[in-house]
Amino acid sequence: MATTTSDVNELVEPQFVRFDETLVLESSGQLDGYTLAYETYGKLNARGDNALLVCHALSGDHHVAGRYDDSGKTNGWWHLLIGPDKPIDTNKFFVVCSNNIGGCHGSTGPSSINPATNKPYGTDFPLVTVKDWVYTQSKLSDHLGITQWAAVIGGSLGGMQAMQWSISYPERLRHCIVIASAAKLNAQNIGFNDVARQAIRTDPDFHNGNYYQYGNAPSRGMRVARMIGHITYLSEEIMGQKFGRNLRKKAKFDYEFTPEFEVESYLRYQGDAFINKFDANTYLLMTKALDYYNPAAETNNDLTEALAPATANFLVVSFSSDWRFSPERSREIVRALQSNKLNVSYAEVTSLNGHDSFLLNIDDYTRVMRSYLNRIARESDLNSQAKVASVDGSQHV
Amino acid sequence: MATTTSDVNELVEPQFVRFDETLVLESSGQLDGYTLAYETYGKLNARGDNALLVCHALSGDHHVAGRYDDSGKTNGWWHLLIGPDKPIDTNKFFVVCSNNIGGCHGSTGPSSINPATNKPYGTDFPLVTVKDWVYTQSKLSDHLGITQWAAVIGGSLGGMQAMQWSISYPERLRHCIVIASAAKLNAQNIGFNDVARQAIRTDPDFHNGNYYQYGNAPSRGMRVARMIGHITYLSEEIMGQKFGRNLRKKAKFDYEFTPEFEVESYLRYQGDAFINKFDANTYLLMTKALDYYNPAAETNNDLTEALAPATANFLVVSFSSDWRFSPERSREIVRALQSNKLNVSYAEVTSLNGHDSFLLNIDDYTRVMRSYLNRIARESDLNSQAKVASVDGSQHV
Repeated sequence: MATTTSDVNELVEPQFVRFDETLVLESSGQLDGYTLAYETYGKLNARGDNALLVCHALSGDHHVAGRYDDSGKTNGWWHLLIGPDKPIDTNKFFVVCSNNIGGCHGSTGPSSINPATNKPYGTDFPLVTVKDWVYTQSKLSDHLGITQWAAVIGGSLGGMQAMQWSISYPERLRHCIVIASAAKLNAQNIGFNDVARQAIRTDPDFHNGNYYQYGNAPSRGMRVARMIGHITYLSEEIMGQKFGRNLRKKAKFDYEFTPEFEVESYLRYQGDAFINKFDANTYLLMTKALDYYNPAAETNNDLTEALAPATANFLVVSFSSDWRFSPERSREIVRALQSNKLNVSYAEVTSLNGHDSFLLNIDDYTRVMRSYLNRIARESDLNSQAKVASVDGSQHV
Repeated sequence: MATTTSDVNELVEPQFVRFDETLVLESSGQLDGYTLAYETYGKLNARGDNALLVCHALSGDHHVAGRYDDSGKTNGWWHLLIGPDKPIDTNKFFVVCSNNIGGCHGSTGPSSINPATNKPYGTDFPLVTVKDWVYTQSKLSDHLGITQWAAVIGGSLGGMQAMQWSISYPERLRHCIVIASAAKLNAQNIGFNDVARQAIRTDPDFHNGNYYQYGNAPSRGMRVARMIGHITYLSEEIMGQKFGRNLRKKAKFDYEFTPEFEVESYLRYQGDAFINKFDANTYLLMTKALDYYNPAAETNNDLTEALAPATANFLVVSFSSDWRFSPERSREIVRALQSNKLNVSYAEVTSLNGHDSFLLNIDDYTRVMRSYLNRIARESDLNSQAKVASVDGSQHV
């Protein structure tokens, strides 16, 4: 049974909220106040119990759904899954997503002006962690008057934030949805992150993180970092299917360093496209937050004990060809949750698309999401005014 | 039954031979003469039928075995496998290895002086391919008076050269040993190569390949390229075993960009160590030769047909955790050889060490090699004057 997802994207605008408190971070760094950029979709109901928080991943931001204009180029990064009648149905749910601190799309980050110097923070911006993000998201929840999220949802690094919500603020979420994520990076993951960081930090245009004043950015390093990233987001199989050894607009080799193969052209394009839309210092901070995350570090490497505070119901989703965060990494989380006698649904979705799968409209995946979200809506009787989704597949979950 | 490998490494010296012919390359580029650096180990017998050619991989050279001095730091890159009484036994075999053209350790390459300009070739050095290397190796064979190799052997990119020998000069080798290799790169392999190339070529010190005159080199790019390489040479499992999330000489995080984890320190060290011992232009050429290799491109993507000229007996070896050139890539070669009714032995060695396995002393691997090489020696009665190896495991192969 196919899930039909119409692609209606609401017009939205980012919003901003300023918190004037001094924020002491896990790294013991401090921020004297900070701004969060965020967006909302759908309506908070009278009981205030239909709110969903989406946490973004490495290169994401608060623009998770909707569109800014009619250009067709401003759809949110998860618009395939979030919107009216979509698996995360904004007819039923009030969806919130904020840009993490350290970000570069409106929340306070390295490219923001440091009030102490009237210059961009640059290298003075402290390292931030998943815990810090979850704390600042809790402040946003207070600001929005949301006592308890119906669910906190995230993929990849966003999944780590969702998991941390269940540990830090168990009473503030009923459901926790962790997609294509892991309870900690392994050595290979950290290795790839560090290569990306080294590419950026050794770019002469990096200027030790204070490149803003030079009017340029470590674009060469960012390009290489993004190219590496893209290889790890895709599976070997899907790269074979999409590109194989297809030549780039030619019948035979030129024997030149210009792209001979389609895959070279694709990766270089992805690298080039990223340069102008993402801040290098933010990229560095995000990869460090990934490296640091490991809730079990505080409980003798016992993930079950680390997750002991959690009371939420969980949906954990992994993708068969994801080698960045393989299904086994999700099963580790599931086993720990089960040991804690929590309600946990686990879906291992067959997909060739690797880690990128979590961003895509894959039938089995959207069906799992739709049915789980329908279950949340039913539990709270949220869908009294909403159309009943045509596919109710909670049995699939 | 364990294989004991003593580590006796002979003193050796590199040798050089100049070929004055104009070499027209597959890329249609030309070289007006070229030098090959090579080394030999053991003695060519009177019949001239105990010669083994070893082909090197991406960052290898002609110094495959023996040692240059007593420092303990000048052992050949495959000294664990090659030497007196070792699996490739120099008491029985006359082993030859040459630096490929395009190399940076004595054979004519981008850092050599171009006689036309009296400056290093730099970017004027043409792209070279596996076929070109095999041709120049055949000229070296002529020079050494070797009509037919007992075996041509190579791992990784070296395995591609061994395979090409069996196609280009079937009458000139009796055995072909292809280890941890593939009949062509896939899109993921090419992607990793291109990221490495982009890191080097966008380094401002690259100067479009003519960096020699500036007295420096694109070291930042080379470092990143080598770090990426090392991640792909190791398996996720062995990185987990060797490094896991172990911290680098500290009990807790510094929240700095200095290495927090052992794995960061290891990769950066490997990157730094490589900078001064390898020429960036050679690295670029070698990765391109990897990309281009695909004998089946000339036979409608039919590898069986591409290998139809081959008459050698084959040993194909793969390693279970090698994700750069996975066992499946070796099985493709084996199937094609079997379709051609050739004698082919295939060993899939269980190892956690990933692609690097082919360089290591792994019991099952060295046993396979020893027994296969013993078989070659017996066939030709080469070991009449040699000790009989204590382990004769041709049944393992």
